[in-house]
Amino acid sequence: MLEQFKVQPKDQVIVSENNLRETVEAIFSKMGLSKNDIELAADVLVKADMRGVETHGVSNMLRSYVTGYGDGSINPTPNWKITRETPSTANIDGDQGIGIVMAARAMDIAIEKAEKVGMGVVTIHNSRHLGMASYHALRATEKDMIGMCMTSCPPSVLPTWGSEPLLGTNPIAVAAPGLKEGPFVFDAAMSAVAGNKLGLARRNETQLLGGWVADSQGNPIMDEVDPPPPGYDLSDREGGASSYLLPVGGTRELGSHKGYGFMCVVDILGGIMSGGGYGINPGRPNFGHYVAAYNIEAFMDTGEFKETLDEFLTMLKTSKPAPGHDRVMYPGLPEVEEHKLRSEEGIPLHYEVVEWFQDICAELSIPMNWKK
Amino acid sequence: MLEQFKVQPKDQVIVSENNLRETVEAIFSKMGLSKNDIELAADVLVKADMRGVETHGVSNMLRSYVTGYGDGSINPTPNWKITRETPSTANIDGDQGIGIVMAARAMDIAIEKAEKVGMGVVTIHNSRHLGMASYHALRATEKDMIGMCMTSCPPSVLPTWGSEPLLGTNPIAVAAPGLKEGPFVFDAAMSAVAGNKLGLARRNETQLLGGWVADSQGNPIMDEVDPPPPGYDLSDREGGASSYLLPVGGTRELGSHKGYGFMCVVDILGGIMSGGGYGINPGRPNFGHYVAAYNIEAFMDTGEFKETLDEFLTMLKTSKPAPGHDRVMYPGLPEVEEHKLRSEEGIPLHYEVVEWFQDICAELSIPMNWKK
Repeated sequence: MLEQFKVQPKDQVIVSENNLRETVEAIFSKMGLSKNDIELAADVLVKADMRGVETHGVSNMLRSYVTGYGDGSINPTPNWKITRETPSTANIDGDQGIGIVMAARAMDIAIEKAEKVGMGVVTIHNSRHLGMASYHALRATEKDMIGMCMTSCPPSVLPTWGSEPLLGTNPIAVAAPGLKEGPFVFDAAMSAVAGNKLGLARRNETQLLGGWVADSQGNPIMDEVDPPPPGYDLSDREGGASSYLLPVGGTRELGSHKGYGFMCVVDILGGIMSGGGYGINPGRPNFGHYVAAYNIEAFMDTGEFKETLDEFLTMLKTSKPAPGHDRVMYPGLPEVEEHKLRSEEGIPLHYEVVEWFQDICAELSIPMNWKK
Repeated sequence: MLEQFKVQPKDQVIVSENNLRETVEAIFSKMGLSKNDIELAADVLVKADMRGVETHGVSNMLRSYVTGYGDGSINPTPNWKITRETPSTANIDGDQGIGIVMAARAMDIAIEKAEKVGMGVVTIHNSRHLGMASYHALRATEKDMIGMCMTSCPPSVLPTWGSEPLLGTNPIAVAAPGLKEGPFVFDAAMSAVAGNKLGLARRNETQLLGGWVADSQGNPIMDEVDPPPPGYDLSDREGGASSYLLPVGGTRELGSHKGYGFMCVVDILGGIMSGGGYGINPGRPNFGHYVAAYNIEAFMDTGEFKETLDEFLTMLKTSKPAPGHDRVMYPGLPEVEEHKLRSEEGIPLHYEVVEWFQDICAELSIPMNWKK
C-alpha cells in the first residue's frame, strides 16, 4: 500500500474482525435489510478491511450506505428480477438494491450457468455501489471457477485530452484459483487512483502524486499536490473544481488512452449493455454491474490449471526485484498477507472512523463493545 | 498517433490498398496457405495498415510471418481441432497455425455459440501471432455483437518492481457496434508501449519517452532515451539487455501495477486456461489466444444498445478538450478516420518496407506492379 493510504500509527484504533462484523451487521439490520442480506453485506465490507482494502471497507463506504438508506436512494428490501435470460446470460433489474448484495447474488447465478453451459455472464441495472469488486470475483474461485466483476460508476474522470469528467473510475476485478498459491486477484480502478483515495490521502495528511489528477482546465498535474477539500465534488463539470481524476497512465504519452479505453469498456459492458446507461446519462443515479464466471473444466482439467497457476505465481514472486525493492509480488498476494496479519492482530481503523461508529451506534441504539 | 510511430514524409512511398492486398495474398499463397486462409490472412494485415495501425500491418509483421513459414515454426496448413467444448465455450489446438487465421476462425465459433446460448468464449493453444487483436473483436460487431480478443505473448515486460522480463505485452481488444458512430474499438498492449513500437521508433529516428522502458537493472527510465539497436532481444533475462519494457503506468506510483495485473489476466485467460501455459513456460513457442462474443440481444434490445452507444460516443467526441488539444477522441475514432483517408489517398509505407517487398517478391518470383 502506498504511504498516502496507510492509517498512521498515531491515529490507529485496533478492532477485532468479530467486533467489527457484529457492529456492521447490527447497522445493516437497523437499515431494514433481510437476515440473509445482512450477513452478506457485512461480509463484503469486513472482508475489504481484512484484506487491507481501506478504500472499500467500513471507513469509506458504510457511512455512504447509511446515508443512502436514510434518504431512500438505496432500497433495503429490493424486489429484484431477471429482465432477460439465456442459458449463459442474464440481465437483472436491481430495484435500487445495494450492489454489495446484488452483485454477489448475480455471481451465484453466473456460477450456476457456468456449471451448466461453461460460461455465465450477468449484468445488473438499477442497482447501487457494489463495494470491493474482487469480493464478487472471488466468489467464483470458491467453486473452482475464474470470476470477473466490473462496475460502471458515476462520472469523475477525464477522458484523455478532455476537460470534463465524463467517465466513472470503473474498476475491473479478476480472480482465479490456485492450489497453494493465490488466489490470484486483480482489482483496480481504471483511473490513476480510485476516487475514494483522495479522501484517504486527506485524512492521512499526505499529498497526491503527480499523474493522478488534472487541474480545473484538464491539464494533468505532474507534481505532488494537496488533496481536494472535504465535500468536494469530483463530478462538477462547470470548471469550478480544483482537480479532476486522470485515467491510469496520467498522460497520453504514458498511456492514459489505455485507462480511458478500459473505462469506456466498463461503461459499455456494465452500463449500456445492462440497459442502465452510462455514468453521465441524464437522470441515472444507479451503478451498472457486470459479473462473469468461467467454468475452468469447460476449457481444460481444473487440477492442471491450478497447478500451472501456482507455478506462474511462484515464478513472479521469486523473481529478482529491481534495485530499491525487497521483492516482486503477484496481484492478490499483499491482500492474502494482510488478511493473515489482521486475523492475528486486528484491523487498524482511523480514530475518526471509530468516532463515526460511536455516533451512529448511539443514534441507532446499538450497543458497541469493541475490545482492543 | 505519436510522432515516434509516424512514417516521415521524406521516407514515404504511397501504395494503394488493392496493390498491397494483391501482393500480400501472393506471398501467403507462396507460403502454402489454402485459398480461404490466404484471403483472410491478407485481410488482417491490410486492414491494420488501412486503419493506421503500423505496428501490426505489413511492415512489422509480414516479414516475421515469412520467416516463421520458412523455418517451419508456423504451419501453413494446420489440422486444428477442438479439444474440449460446451454450449458456450470451446478450446482449440491450433496445430501451429498462424493466429491471424486461427483467431478469426475461433471468433466465428464464438459468434455461433453466442447466437444459440447468449455468450461464446473460445481459447486457442499451440497457435502463433494473431496480428491486430481488434480485427478479431471487430468480426463480432459485423453480427451486431460485442467482440473481445486477448493474446498471451512471449515475455518481454517487467512485473512492477521486477527486473526480469516475465510477461508478454498481452494486448486486449474490445469492439462494440454503433449506428452512425463507431464501431467503438479499444485495442492496446498492456505494456506502456507495444514491443513492435521500439523498432518503429528506431526506423523513424526518434526517441522513446520516459516511463516506457527500464534499464538493464529494472529501474524505470523516466527521461527520453534512444531505442534499442536492431536485432535486440527484449526477452534476454541475463541482464545483458540495455532496456526492458514497462507495464502501462510505468512506475508503481503512476499505476504500473494495473498494467502488470492485466498482463497476468491475459496470461491466465489466453495462456494458462487454454492449456498452452504462460509466456515464459519452458519450451513454449506458442501464443495463447482468447476470443469472446456477446450477443447483445441476450441482455437487451440491440437497437436500443446501438442508439445509446452512439449517444455515449458522441458525448465523448463533442466534449470540451483540455488546453493544447483540438478535440477529444473516442477509442476507434482515429482508426475510422485513417481508414477513410487511406482509402482515398493510399497507404504510406516506409521505403525500407517497400525495399523488403521488392526483395521478397523477386525471391518468390511474384510480379509486383505497384502504381502510385
